[in-house]
Amino acid sequence: MANTKFRPLHDRVVVRRVESEEKTKGGIIIPDTAKEKPAEGEVVAVGPGARDEHGKVVALDVKVGDRVLFGKWSGTEVKLDGVDLLIMKEADIMGVIG
Amino acid sequence: MANTKFRPLHDRVVVRRVESEEKTKGGIIIPDTAKEKPAEGEVVAVGPGARDEHGKVVALDVKVGDRVLFGKWSGTEVKLDGVDLLIMKEADIMGVIG
Amino acid sequence: MANTKFRPLHDRVVVRRVESEEKTKGGIIIPDTAKEKPAEGEVVAVGPGARDEHGKVVALDVKVGDRVLFGKWSGTEVKLDGVDLLIMKEADIMGVIG
Amino acid sequence: MANTKFRPLHDRVVVRRVESEEKTKGGIIIPDTAKEKPAEGEVVAVGPGARDEHGKVVALDVKVGDRVLFGKWSGTEVKLDGVDLLIMKEADIMGVIG
Amino acid sequence: MANTKFRPLHDRVVVRRVESEEKTKGGIIIPDTAKEKPAEGEVVAVGPGARDEHGKVVALDVKVGDRVLFGKWSGTEVKLDGVDLLIMKEADIMGVIG
Amino acid sequence: MANTKFRPLHDRVVVRRVESEEKTKGGIIIPDTAKEKPAEGEVVAVGPGARDEHGKVVALDVKVGDRVLFGKWSGTEVKLDGVDLLIMKEADIMGVIG
Amino acid sequence: MANTKFRPLHDRVVVRRVESEEKTKGGIIIPDTAKEKPAEGEVVAVGPGARDEHGKVVALDVKVGDRVLFGKWSGTEVKLDGVDLLIMKEADIMGVIG
Repeated sequence: MANTKFRPLHDRVVVRRVESEEKTKGGIIIPDTAKEKPAEGEVVAVGPGARDEHGKVVALDVKVGDRVLFGKWSGTEVKLDGVDLLIMKEADIMGVIG
Repeated sequence: MANTKFRPLHDRVVVRRVESEEKTKGGIIIPDTAKEKPAEGEVVAVGPGARDEHGKVVALDVKVGDRVLFGKWSGTEVKLDGVDLLIMKEADIMGVIG
Repeated sequence: MANTKFRPLHDRVVVRRVESEEKTKGGIIIPDTAKEKPAEGEVVAVGPGARDEHGKVVALDVKVGDRVLFGKWSGTEVKLDGVDLLIMKEADIMGVIG
Repeated sequence: MANTKFRPLHDRVVVRRVESEEKTKGGIIIPDTAKEKPAEGEVVAVGPGARDEHGKVVALDVKVGDRVLFGKWSGTEVKLDGVDLLIMKEADIMGVIG
Repeated sequence: MANTKFRPLHDRVVVRRVESEEKTKGGIIIPDTAKEKPAEGEVVAVGPGARDEHGKVVALDVKVGDRVLFGKWSGTEVKLDGVDLLIMKEADIMGVIG
Repeated sequence: MANTKFRPLHDRVVVRRVESEEKTKGGIIIPDTAKEKPAEGEVVAVGPGARDEHGKVVALDVKVGDRVLFGKWSGTEVKLDGVDLLIMKEADIMGVIG
Repeated sequence: MANTKFRPLHDRVVVRRVESEEKTKGGIIIPDTAKEKPAEGEVVAVGPGARDEHGKVVALDVKVGDRVLFGKWSGTEVKLDGVDLLIMKEADIMGVIG
């Protein structure tokens, strides 16, 4: 992932989806009804943050490498260096595992 | 629940749903029409809070261990360490029992 | 109602619905078309208030014991200590009787 | 109307609907298409006002006794001391007659 | 129009619709497709203005006597002293002629 | 255009639509699918600007004479001094040519 | 692109769509399902920025020459100096490549 060249704008993050057969360190298993599209992934790039009302950039809470859960239908799919990735807003991320 | 490794972002909380056959200490009984999906649970993790207009994080009002009532359809289901859990926003929680 | 153990969050209040055959002290009679579900009740618990833009909690205007009118479809039903109650936001309450 | 015991919350007002056969002092006649439900009335109670962004209560512009025009479908109907009344928000009131 | 007794609230204005056969001083002719309901009129009463975020009343930009254009479907119709009038918000007025 | 007598309110501008057969100085050609209703025009009048949160009027960025592009379905059509014009909000204007 | 004469207003940017057969320097390949309309492009003009709550213009984060990804259906198509371009808001741009 080191040679990733995509810089997300504002409060967007890039997430690599983790397949459900991979064991996650936090022991999370996505319930059966969600098996075919697990909402778990690893953050591979983060934007600088959105601006607050006074124009100040507020840094994001997730960082590169975080294991995250996100809404099953969140994000836009792109392929970067041959890897399928999702670009989503930090607000679509529910939390960090581990 | 001690080995839970999920850290919710912002104003999200993780709730373990309580089955309606369990007696709650506050004596709450969910009405019959809601029996199959009682909207009662125990908070197992809380986020740091949402940011207000000035970018300051405002801590949540619920804490780990609180018995809470929440909207029947609130939250997103995940399984963590073999336990079915719900991730929801604090705004979906109506109050604390006991 | 003294042993009520439910603490509403934010700007929510708990209301005990008053049946239309009970006479209210203010002499309010709900119109016929609303007979089967009168929108009148007694406040049994109030939340601390919602936060304003600066994160300050603004106390509610209703208090425990107030006789109130509220939108017929407002609130979520729960049973507490054997009593059917409604949890609603203060904004759903139209006013206080008496 | 003196023994009215209903105190509206926030920016709500209580209005007694005026039947279209009553002559109003301003000489307003509601157009024919609206005959069966004229949007004219008399204010019988006013709330203390809504809070602005800083939590300060801003008093309402209408007062008890004002003859007002309001949207035909505005308000919620209640019966108070045997009189049919409407509870609505001040924003539903278009203006004052006379 | 001098004996008009209607005082609009907030940012509302009262407008007398001008029929399309009347020549306007600015030479405006409403296009054919709009012939049957020309969106042109004369302001006969203005409210004091809406309150800004700090509760201060901001006076309106139109004044009594202004010839205005407004959205064809804007406003609520009333009859005042035998004249058909429209009550609308200043935001529905597109501009002033002449 | 000098004898235009229409003064737009707030953040509205008046635009004269430019037919697609006219050559524009910036060399812009509207794509074929848009041929019958080109979204190009000349500003003939501008409002004073909208008020910001503090009630201060913020002047518009376009000025009379600007060649502009705007959303194909933007604005309301009027005829002024025999010329078909569009009244729209500045936000409907995408940019200035030349 | 040097003779571009279009100046976008506010927070709009002009983007030249890049066909999917062109190799991008960041190695991004748009997934197959998106082949016919790749959401990749080069920024050819940027607006001055939108105004914040205090009326201050906040400069955009993208600059002319940036390779960007944007929502597949974002923007309005125009032809400028014979080149098909898209005018969109910066918020429609997900990030910068390379």
